Amino acid sequence: MAQIISFGEVLMRLSTPGFSRFEQARQLNVTYAGGEANVSSALAYWGHKTAHVTRFPDSPIGRAASQYLSTHGVDTSHIIYGGPRMAVYFLETGAALRGSQIVYDRANSSLATIDPEEINWDEILKDAKWFHWAGITPALSQGAADALLNGIKTARKYGLTVSGDIFYRANLWKYGKKPSDILPELTAGTDVVIANKENILEIFGIEGNDFVESSVNLQKAFPQVSKVVDTKRTSISASHNLLRALLWNGTELLETADIEINPIIDRVGGGDAFIAGLIHGLISFNGDDQKALEFGVAASALKHTIEGDALISTVAEVEAIRQGETSGRIKR
Amino acid sequence: MAQIISFGEVLMRLSTPGFSRFEQARQLNVTYAGGEANVSSALAYWGHKTAHVTRFPDSPIGRAASQYLSTHGVDTSHIIYGGPRMAVYFLETGAALRGSQIVYDRANSSLATIDPEEINWDEILKDAKWFHWAGITPALSQGAADALLNGIKTARKYGLTVSGDIFYRANLWKYGKKPSDILPELTAGTDVVIANKENILEIFGIEGNDFVESSVNLQKAFPQVSKVVDTKRTSISASHNLLRALLWNGTELLETADIEINPIIDRVGGGDAFIAGLIHGLISFNGDDQKALEFGVAASALKHTIEGDALISTVAEVEAIRQGETSGRIKR
Amino acid sequence: MAQIISFGEVLMRLSTPGFSRFEQARQLNVTYAGGEANVSSALAYWGHKTAHVTRFPDSPIGRAASQYLSTHGVDTSHIIYGGPRMAVYFLETGAALRGSQIVYDRANSSLATIDPEEINWDEILKDAKWFHWAGITPALSQGAADALLNGIKTARKYGLTVSGDIFYRANLWKYGKKPSDILPELTAGTDVVIANKENILEIFGIEGNDFVESSVNLQKAFPQVSKVVDTKRTSISASHNLLRALLWNGTELLETADIEINPIIDRVGGGDAFIAGLIHGLISFNGDDQKALEFGVAASALKHTIEGDALISTVAEVEAIRQGETSGRIKR
Amino acid sequence: MAQIISFGEVLMRLSTPGFSRFEQARQLNVTYAGGEANVSSALAYWGHKTAHVTRFPDSPIGRAASQYLSTHGVDTSHIIYGGPRMAVYFLETGAALRGSQIVYDRANSSLATIDPEEINWDEILKDAKWFHWAGITPALSQGAADALLNGIKTARKYGLTVSGDIFYRANLWKYGKKPSDILPELTAGTDVVIANKENILEIFGIEGNDFVESSVNLQKAFPQVSKVVDTKRTSISASHNLLRALLWNGTELLETADIEINPIIDRVGGGDAFIAGLIHGLISFNGDDQKALEFGVAASALKHTIEGDALISTVAEVEAIRQGETSGRIKR
Amino acid sequence: MAQIISFGEVLMRLSTPGFSRFEQARQLNVTYAGGEANVSSALAYWGHKTAHVTRFPDSPIGRAASQYLSTHGVDTSHIIYGGPRMAVYFLETGAALRGSQIVYDRANSSLATIDPEEINWDEILKDAKWFHWAGITPALSQGAADALLNGIKTARKYGLTVSGDIFYRANLWKYGKKPSDILPELTAGTDVVIANKENILEIFGIEGNDFVESSVNLQKAFPQVSKVVDTKRTSISASHNLLRALLWNGTELLETADIEINPIIDRVGGGDAFIAGLIHGLISFNGDDQKALEFGVAASALKHTIEGDALISTVAEVEAIRQGETSGRIKR
Amino acid sequence: MAQIISFGEVLMRLSTPGFSRFEQARQLNVTYAGGEANVSSALAYWGHKTAHVTRFPDSPIGRAASQYLSTHGVDTSHIIYGGPRMAVYFLETGAALRGSQIVYDRANSSLATIDPEEINWDEILKDAKWFHWAGITPALSQGAADALLNGIKTARKYGLTVSGDIFYRANLWKYGKKPSDILPELTAGTDVVIANKENILEIFGIEGNDFVESSVNLQKAFPQVSKVVDTKRTSISASHNLLRALLWNGTELLETADIEINPIIDRVGGGDAFIAGLIHGLISFNGDDQKALEFGVAASALKHTIEGDALISTVAEVEAIRQGETSGRIKR
Repeated sequence: MAQIISFGEVLMRLSTPGFSRFEQARQLNVTYAGGEANVSSALAYWGHKTAHVTRFPDSPIGRAASQYLSTHGVDTSHIIYGGPRMAVYFLETGAALRGSQIVYDRANSSLATIDPEEINWDEILKDAKWFHWAGITPALSQGAADALLNGIKTARKYGLTVSGDIFYRANLWKYGKKPSDILPELTAGTDVVIANKENILEIFGIEGNDFVESSVNLQKAFPQVSKVVDTKRTSISASHNLLRALLWNGTELLETADIEINPIIDRVGGGDAFIAGLIHGLISFNGDDQKALEFGVAASALKHTIEGDALISTVAEVEAIRQGETSGRIKR
Repeated sequence: MAQIISFGEVLMRLSTPGFSRFEQARQLNVTYAGGEANVSSALAYWGHKTAHVTRFPDSPIGRAASQYLSTHGVDTSHIIYGGPRMAVYFLETGAALRGSQIVYDRANSSLATIDPEEINWDEILKDAKWFHWAGITPALSQGAADALLNGIKTARKYGLTVSGDIFYRANLWKYGKKPSDILPELTAGTDVVIANKENILEIFGIEGNDFVESSVNLQKAFPQVSKVVDTKRTSISASHNLLRALLWNGTELLETADIEINPIIDRVGGGDAFIAGLIHGLISFNGDDQKALEFGVAASALKHTIEGDALISTVAEVEAIRQGETSGRIKR
Repeated sequence: MAQIISFGEVLMRLSTPGFSRFEQARQLNVTYAGGEANVSSALAYWGHKTAHVTRFPDSPIGRAASQYLSTHGVDTSHIIYGGPRMAVYFLETGAALRGSQIVYDRANSSLATIDPEEINWDEILKDAKWFHWAGITPALSQGAADALLNGIKTARKYGLTVSGDIFYRANLWKYGKKPSDILPELTAGTDVVIANKENILEIFGIEGNDFVESSVNLQKAFPQVSKVVDTKRTSISASHNLLRALLWNGTELLETADIEINPIIDRVGGGDAFIAGLIHGLISFNGDDQKALEFGVAASALKHTIEGDALISTVAEVEAIRQGETSGRIKR
Repeated sequence: MAQIISFGEVLMRLSTPGFSRFEQARQLNVTYAGGEANVSSALAYWGHKTAHVTRFPDSPIGRAASQYLSTHGVDTSHIIYGGPRMAVYFLETGAALRGSQIVYDRANSSLATIDPEEINWDEILKDAKWFHWAGITPALSQGAADALLNGIKTARKYGLTVSGDIFYRANLWKYGKKPSDILPELTAGTDVVIANKENILEIFGIEGNDFVESSVNLQKAFPQVSKVVDTKRTSISASHNLLRALLWNGTELLETADIEINPIIDRVGGGDAFIAGLIHGLISFNGDDQKALEFGVAASALKHTIEGDALISTVAEVEAIRQGETSGRIKR
Repeated sequence: MAQIISFGEVLMRLSTPGFSRFEQARQLNVTYAGGEANVSSALAYWGHKTAHVTRFPDSPIGRAASQYLSTHGVDTSHIIYGGPRMAVYFLETGAALRGSQIVYDRANSSLATIDPEEINWDEILKDAKWFHWAGITPALSQGAADALLNGIKTARKYGLTVSGDIFYRANLWKYGKKPSDILPELTAGTDVVIANKENILEIFGIEGNDFVESSVNLQKAFPQVSKVVDTKRTSISASHNLLRALLWNGTELLETADIEINPIIDRVGGGDAFIAGLIHGLISFNGDDQKALEFGVAASALKHTIEGDALISTVAEVEAIRQGETSGRIKR
Repeated sequence: MAQIISFGEVLMRLSTPGFSRFEQARQLNVTYAGGEANVSSALAYWGHKTAHVTRFPDSPIGRAASQYLSTHGVDTSHIIYGGPRMAVYFLETGAALRGSQIVYDRANSSLATIDPEEINWDEILKDAKWFHWAGITPALSQGAADALLNGIKTARKYGLTVSGDIFYRANLWKYGKKPSDILPELTAGTDVVIANKENILEIFGIEGNDFVESSVNLQKAFPQVSKVVDTKRTSISASHNLLRALLWNGTELLETADIEINPIIDRVGGGDAFIAGLIHGLISFNGDDQKALEFGVAASALKHTIEGDALISTVAEVEAIRQGETSGRIKR
């Protein structure tokens, strides 16, 4: 029985090898990934029992995607098969002053065309502890939004902790609804919110002079929210970044130091690794939020050195980085 | 100025390397191909000035697709940019008793969502000699069907020879029309029809006891049709086939001997290579239809030894096979 | 809860790419496989809940091996971590008149150094239906032999069906015991025996003029044995084989026709795929042993077209081959 | 009809993969490139109609080279086929303190053995706007030098702008002539000269205390020259460079800031990308030489992040870098 | 001290991967090979001390070539460094009815421009037993022809056995001499001649109704010749050949049975492997010419299953094939 | 006759491609390497005649290993064949803050199970000048320790210079002996010792406040020791290191400046390259120890830019770095 359940779209990721441009690539590397599934994958490597809920086409491609999640140790028994197609994203990895480039082809995916009744949330969530969602899902379609709302409500019913990555790109909402139509109700059922000051303003119309003020005001509007978390990235080049994070826990603002990453091997999924690390810490560190936040940043930094969306690591590896061991010496 | 114009969808082809199953592949080979474009590609290698008309998304992926056609020497200046997405097909190459497997993801492509007015057929066709289309295009959408019909009518206006590959898969027609609603008008403007007895019955309701009788009856219904052509494949295994072809030219039935192909490297595009060879022969062999038919079969056989949809060859190479040089000796 | 449990060594498989010789290879393909695990992998693709029991070193290599089995959908929660090292085998794939070559490096593996007490067979088997073992395991060490014997006894206690692949290579038995010291007791607890006339004579000293007579005599010695099964391979070259199988079910001899495989992509694991197919049939075909035997041969033939030890397939694919569809046509 | 015409040798580029040394490489990456063709390639991606003039052997290798230029959208219809061989260069890519290494094998190439009469410059240039050459061509042979001189004279006749990259390596001139025998006449017909103070002294014997003085004196000697341009590279390591450029336009010295590149993916072709960017700017920026110079440096910097000699990019990408967007953020 | 000395050009071999056409290949596989060096390589794997004499450019490419021969265990200490360039050949591997294609680029190589005085044949040959040459060397240049003649004369002086592969392609002789000007003197010093009836007629003007008669007449003209050997290839397709050989030893005609090879992995170097096998047999089999001839054919057949010019094998592997073990069973 | 002889285990090195984690790799790069053999390999590229002594299994894997050393020009004629298995190490290459990871699987290797009598040290060393060993060898087994001691004694008998890399990892000594049981006698016969202050204390119990004091005290205990050498690495990240070295020659402490390496391609073997450079300098630089030390550091730095354990370079390349040419400009 999985303890941590994530829900969201999984896309076929087709990335050019090395630093090839799309026009140059005669091969593409293929994996399967999505923000929420990336969280479950990272947590599974750390020994948590995780399951991901999504919908795949009933085709060899859908089966390959499901098999790929199994590779990471994620329980795939709740995946639903049906619908027209696998969502796809194309990735060209940049270097130095050339940024990476992502082209999405996700419209009309199997998840976007889901009927919310296809998911039996009671069965999936009744024995679990944590439910994770992200802001991209309600942008896909009314069906996906409804399915997510059902999930959050069911999670509340069974007393799970709910985390939501209130990520927001305006141009993704194409089916007639606006973020402000949907996200408030989802956030109302959420305990741990990942969002920055700008998101809080754009989505909820909640103002604040700084992250703390915005967080305080968010909590006033949504009393279930107990923690608000944000990451800060300094981008010196596509190959060289600094990372840190902030957490408002209702009483104090916690911060981490910057971690330097140079060179970056693959920064996609870095935010998801942060969330996975944070969740691991919140579950395992007996209320030491500062340590949980640092574990999240360490996990995210480590992810930047690994190709693919998924963080493949042990707890010990992340913990060593959290404790400042970033000199990269050989382990024998 | 291109002399031979093809029109139709071009798909991103994502094929597993070697004989990998979809579940095994961590890389996919990527090219861009489509039945009608394959015809233009093969003809371009033989020195014909060809152009392909299609519609690609205005994205790095669309530009990569266009660039790929340029690689084969096909004029891409008439390609239209716009619409939601690139059509895709996934290919798993079989061997021995395991057949290859194709999964299409082409719904809602940029070509399927075309507005027929976007194509200026007069400009494209006024100085050309030959126009080629296939039966998949009118199955995509009403817009694609209308665009094709405009193309055929314009081709007739300027006196081009028109060839049509009346290929037909019932499950592709999903927008409300049936083949019998659309294909008759397209066929009425076509000189060279590639079709077999079964197609002629299913699509047009035209009966016949054999290929000749069906062809004669097809000509009665569509007097513009001057030649009806068909290929016959004997499939011993996924790695071992025999190929031959038939041509009814209104007065006599021409046939070729079987060519044996063992092992097959890639049979996708084999039918398109046949059509390219046939068109080359009809243009270049001064009315020697038998030689044209043989050239088509030789081109198709050669294609089976080359990875990718496109036949990359010289006229001399195909001609040598047509003359029976299939022993595979080293050329120095 | 897994229904089918296999037990045995899993090796890192390092194979030269293409047809390279060991001296040429600068890369090796790496997967993880073993005869018994191959059976569980194939069955998992067909929807059976399977688990594999083995022992891996507690190292990144051991974790990678475990993750690889997860990829195939096999439950890895019963794997034990400890001991000195991962067993390895090196494979050079032959072609035409050059046979493939395998070099084993499995001495002193984590499984060979197992303490039988490390496995809690009651917990693993109490809710299961089928237990599968092979003759290589008791050859590894006394500990492995004892662990296997415990497994078979526990399986009998809970009423599982037990299948055993009485495979035998004399030079593998190096720890002081002979096959005749150990295999009789293991066979005594086994329902379905895979063995040929020569094995039966060499291991048990049981004679017979043909496969039926040997099988009858084997059943006399071991009354629990209800079926004896054998496969026959005709090796025309490393690239071209014929396969068929025999089954004695206590009352009649069942046989299949030959299936031809040309070219062979990878024949390693072909025997395991046969066993998986047979088990699937014995479980699912309501006592139609002939169909089960044919399904096994079809599964084995299909495996020969796939790189790696594991058969990745659907039931429908195998069933189509069983019904004679071996022409290798493209599936769209 | 191409508007921008380049002329010069195209070589097969055989580069070791990754950072392999020549002794390690069992595969070599193959593309086809040359300084002048690189200029045409970059400009073609930006929408200019470009054509390259060269001579290739009439062989599969020559055809592959021609096809490769087509890939970049360069018109290859003026390429001449004949002569003994394709020029080749071998490239080993360095990293950190190990510099890259180039080995040329270009003697006796098809271009070096050209008869100047083989090129019909009137037909090629009569409708064009710009002609580009480089100092390597007259070093190849008397035939190549004469062909180039004919090209420049014809360009002048039809009023084209002529740019010349007065690149100079003494050890390349092996057929009896010295740079000072040939380059003055070529430079006399050139509008935009790419050269540094040292080149101007060595080749023309024209002195100057700094780049401006040398440029002024060059203009005195060759009144057709309207602009003199130079790039400056600071090489911190093989992986880390800074780039800037200078332009004397007859009245003032324009300069750009340094752009930092770290890590460098492939610096070969960086100078050609600069020239392409400069030409694009001189054609498109309505006399804003400063912006043209900056566009050149931005194009060159971007080239360093792309494998291969050719800059594959859009105008918008280069323009963003010119405006200082070098933080490498992901584009979605 | 090497016992077997070969002399001849070594070329960089650049082959397209898999069955790619030249136009498709973005990587080329690189090895270094030549007919005579291939003989030394095969013999070195069988335990003979062999050395190859040739001339390479004094460049990283020349050093890589030399290093490659070392890989096969061939002594490279007699290689001379100097001259302009490495000879190159490009190989496209065919399949089924498409033959492989070789493009040579060997003119003006370092060996072709050798000064015969650069080789100290006395030092190289004084302690050796066997000297091997081929008919391509005297076609390269007068210098190469003279160097070879010096080698043969020195070999005779020290009593070595001399073998010569009188291979002949008319279009290779470009420096003014004809085969008939040079080959007779070389053949006069040779003991074992590899040639067919057609070669004997074309080169020496020596007639014969069959291989035996031609061989007898060749021996009359060149009394040093003790054996004449020929191979016969039946080419069913590029992937399927039959091989056998003939040997006239002055008193009787020996023949072997055909060996079937299907599929062929790489047939280049097959003739050289035959010669290596024959030399091994003539040295090691105590005058059993029949066995030596069979060993040669077995070696050649085995070579066809290995990528690259060089036969990498053990004596035991070849001997097993000679004895008819061609079923390709797995060796464990 | 080899002049420099090294002795020690050679392992199959299986490294993940690029920066893949073990769990991700479906291919592993394979080479063969060991600390002492790496020294011989580097020296062979610089023109020294070197031979390596070790023991390999008599299998295709053992032959491939031997062939690999030949590739580097190392004489393999003294390698002994026998014993159970090839030692293996697995390498995962890190980047940025993620260190590389090595997993050894070397127990019970062919070298560890050597009988010291198998090596004929008199024959191997009698005409040589230098003998090199490392501290890992006596940790393998008593047999290996005895074989090494025999080698050192024989080297002393014939007046060779002996260098020893007193490398020490406590967890490698598993056969019952401690470093302090064995290393003193080995060190007593050694001229050039590579060790740091910590090693000297841990192994010999010899104290010192700094490297000089420890070295002086070491020399007092072992009068044969004439030089003590140490390297210092500053690890900023897995991709960015600084390197320098110290040498106590009995009278003065020599030091080098730091060399910066960014990015690191492969740091494994960096220490061996240093020793090779030092030995080259001690042999070739007429007693200029400072220059020898600098040559060692330059060689080590260059190694970090090359994939694989072995330094492939020319003397000129290393010398240029020693003289400060680290700007990485292209060499043409």
